Amino acid sequence: MANKRLTPQSQDFSAWYNEVVYRADLADLSPVRGSMVIRPYGYALWENIQGAMDGMFKASGHENLYFPMLIPVSYFEREKEHVEGFSPELAVVTHAGGKPLEEPLAIRPTSETIIGEMYSKWIQSYRDLPLLYNQWCNVMRWEMRTRPFLRTTEFLWQEGHTAHAGAEEALEETMRMVNIYAAFARDWAAMPVMVGEKTSGERFAGALRTYTIETMMRDTRALQAGTSHYMGENFARAFDITFSDEENALRYVHTTSWGVSTRMIGAIIMAHGDDQGLIMPPRLAPVQVIIVPIFRNDQREIAERVLDASDRLRQELVDVGVRVRVDAREGLSPGWKFNDWEQKGVPLRIELGPRDLEAGRVVAADRLSGEKQPLGRDEVAGVVVERLEAFHSALYARAESFRDGHSSTVDDYDSFCKHIENGWVHATHCGEPVCEQAIQEDTKATARCIPFDGLEAGGGCVRCGGPTGYPRRVVFARAY
Amino acid sequence: MANKRLTPQSQDFSAWYNEVVYRADLADLSPVRGSMVIRPYGYALWENIQGAMDGMFKASGHENLYFPMLIPVSYFEREKEHVEGFSPELAVVTHAGGKPLEEPLAIRPTSETIIGEMYSKWIQSYRDLPLLYNQWCNVMRWEMRTRPFLRTTEFLWQEGHTAHAGAEEALEETMRMVNIYAAFARDWAAMPVMVGEKTSGERFAGALRTYTIETMMRDTRALQAGTSHYMGENFARAFDITFSDEENALRYVHTTSWGVSTRMIGAIIMAHGDDQGLIMPPRLAPVQVIIVPIFRNDQREIAERVLDASDRLRQELVDVGVRVRVDAREGLSPGWKFNDWEQKGVPLRIELGPRDLEAGRVVAADRLSGEKQPLGRDEVAGVVVERLEAFHSALYARAESFRDGHSSTVDDYDSFCKHIENGWVHATHCGEPVCEQAIQEDTKATARCIPFDGLEAGGGCVRCGGPTGYPRRVVFARAY
Repeated sequence: MANKRLTPQSQDFSAWYNEVVYRADLADLSPVRGSMVIRPYGYALWENIQGAMDGMFKASGHENLYFPMLIPVSYFEREKEHVEGFSPELAVVTHAGGKPLEEPLAIRPTSETIIGEMYSKWIQSYRDLPLLYNQWCNVMRWEMRTRPFLRTTEFLWQEGHTAHAGAEEALEETMRMVNIYAAFARDWAAMPVMVGEKTSGERFAGALRTYTIETMMRDTRALQAGTSHYMGENFARAFDITFSDEENALRYVHTTSWGVSTRMIGAIIMAHGDDQGLIMPPRLAPVQVIIVPIFRNDQREIAERVLDASDRLRQELVDVGVRVRVDAREGLSPGWKFNDWEQKGVPLRIELGPRDLEAGRVVAADRLSGEKQPLGRDEVAGVVVERLEAFHSALYARAESFRDGHSSTVDDYDSFCKHIENGWVHATHCGEPVCEQAIQEDTKATARCIPFDGLEAGGGCVRCGGPTGYPRRVVFARAY
Repeated sequence: MANKRLTPQSQDFSAWYNEVVYRADLADLSPVRGSMVIRPYGYALWENIQGAMDGMFKASGHENLYFPMLIPVSYFEREKEHVEGFSPELAVVTHAGGKPLEEPLAIRPTSETIIGEMYSKWIQSYRDLPLLYNQWCNVMRWEMRTRPFLRTTEFLWQEGHTAHAGAEEALEETMRMVNIYAAFARDWAAMPVMVGEKTSGERFAGALRTYTIETMMRDTRALQAGTSHYMGENFARAFDITFSDEENALRYVHTTSWGVSTRMIGAIIMAHGDDQGLIMPPRLAPVQVIIVPIFRNDQREIAERVLDASDRLRQELVDVGVRVRVDAREGLSPGWKFNDWEQKGVPLRIELGPRDLEAGRVVAADRLSGEKQPLGRDEVAGVVVERLEAFHSALYARAESFRDGHSSTVDDYDSFCKHIENGWVHATHCGEPVCEQAIQEDTKATARCIPFDGLEAGGGCVRCGGPTGYPRRVVFARAY
């Protein structure tokens, strides 16, 4: 049994991605078109993402709840832009309990409409505001071309939906949540993100403002890893969500929505992985340390001693809060196991053989640097905890320097077209959707965002020369 | 504003149940027939249930994963008993992406079939076994008569699906899981349960054995709160799940499945609630302690001191791991708040007013005993932790004594029919489904289970006099 090598990223990034998803046991193809099975290793990563984010949501005053998955199709027609955004993607239940339904029901592509219906019932007075609710659930959008984690008909996500008495408070919430996403990316996923606002051409259907976190993949394309929308009064008017204010006047609430999905897993894979496979950010890694005992099946006594020692070490690491496993599988060579766990991106590998046992040491191998180093048996637990923290920082720094090394600031369209071939471009733009469209036709690049801390705009629009539409430069990139 | 009294349990238990679900903000009616919205207070209870169970699943070696929600309708036809069990309840997607589908897709009523398909791919050798997987998800069964938490078209649950090399190991797993459910009920939900095996008439479609936990509601009816099934080789044959054993012979795996759903919330409501509303088991309670500051809106300075003191106490309780809130809502009287939190079943209420502040004390009220008692301000944190533990034990003891007080052992059918009117009956039974059916027609009672630690059977069948079908007595009850 030998591990097959992955297609190198530089040769075919897309092939590399698919191979690593399936070979590292993150997901599997399913017999249902466009959907996937998330296998335990991939799902454990999602659970860690959920746990980290959910903690941040709750710490900022949000509560979880659960709305029905089936929504009457007629609900989608109440908000014009929303229906245009979602109608073509709906999966529709027409029969149930052996009979045709009177009204067809769509599987939620997002829950704004049913939530709007409930909020109009729950909100009466200013005392009921703000409503700060979030839902973790599955949603469905009937996509034609699908890829695991990046675009599947069914996916898992969280959708936050909040209602506020006024615009200012709602805009603060919209900003708070995109900043929470950015903090999650930085502190948990070791991913540097650009935080900014979408241009009008790239906004969510029905939103007045869309904030986004954009992150660079190792093929230099951008991936939108989370968005936060300010809907103004649009949904409140469509669903009649009103409240009496302190002067007893009836007003519409202002709503926001914000979401992150299993796409985040695709982002983590492509932001950090290399030709050997995944590289897991340690704070989210399902397995932070893999212990590989070195033994031969024909030397039972030695094998048992090595396995015992591995298990004692495992327990020590568990006791200091490390997620650790021992790979005691028989019939597989140590080298095969090394490759297997490298492909799965486990940050640290500890090798433990009979000679190590005698010498009172282990060998620790780092997935990022590739370095192997002996560690005294007694210092392992302490060193491992430090190493995992250092791994996080090094991984972040690597992604940041990669992004910065593939970003350019340009002032003319020729340079724009040249630099967009392998990186992100910061450019002044007029803000006209038709001009954005022309850029996309020329270069396949889209306006990712106007970064909040972006560079000042200057001169005219990089393509059409028209007057600048925003005080800051727009970041363009080819994107997932 | 006054709180409305609930319909007393003794007058109309079913009305009491619906009222308490909606008034305590556990759930709300939804505009989609047969489904409900789980509100934050109800969902927080579910999150606590999930957290506790998930910990037990993982500690016993199980991993979570996620399968697609849509399943080709043809899959349900592969296992004959399974299709008979579920076909009438399917909700079917026939259109998606604006077009009719080539093959209709059902929303999962349970995932056995798609899991069977995947397991046949994942399992090749004895080295791949056992597979110990669990999924947390939503499922849908098109029920005609629905009730919040007890029976809704869509509900949330976990479904464990395991595959093993042989019958013995699979039966051990089936037993392990029903025992985990029983431990959860006892240690977290403060609910005594009867653990036993279902009669053949009450087994899951396609199972060879079904184990169950049965718990008594305050109207003396039984509720099945969790089940664990041994499927033998049935699903393995239907989905061709085979493995090569150590002698390289091809064999079918033995599978199990086990599940607990949001029905557990219905069980908790009806096992513990009283005429004042819910009584939350402290280890699962979303709010374990509610602090009600006593102040008048026209005395701002005093109000602020009381609110400050309440918040300090809240922080102290948070620090010792207590889930606590301060009810600082304005415009509501303390009495109204007391009733509100009583209805929501919060185990301990702490009242804190200006005079308490001066006297260096608070008043603690116990939801179960109704007793109010002053506590020295400095001892609150320590006492609260002890009280919550004592509350758990007292709640369990109350439920157990209620159940034992409403259980009878009978040997003749007249007594059976009399005692079944308000309780559970332990009786010898012949084991014939037609005889069970006759009992149900006479009395509306069904065979809940043959308890593992049940009383020895003796004499003939309580109804037909035929030879006894089981070594132990069967427990009969009217059930949800």
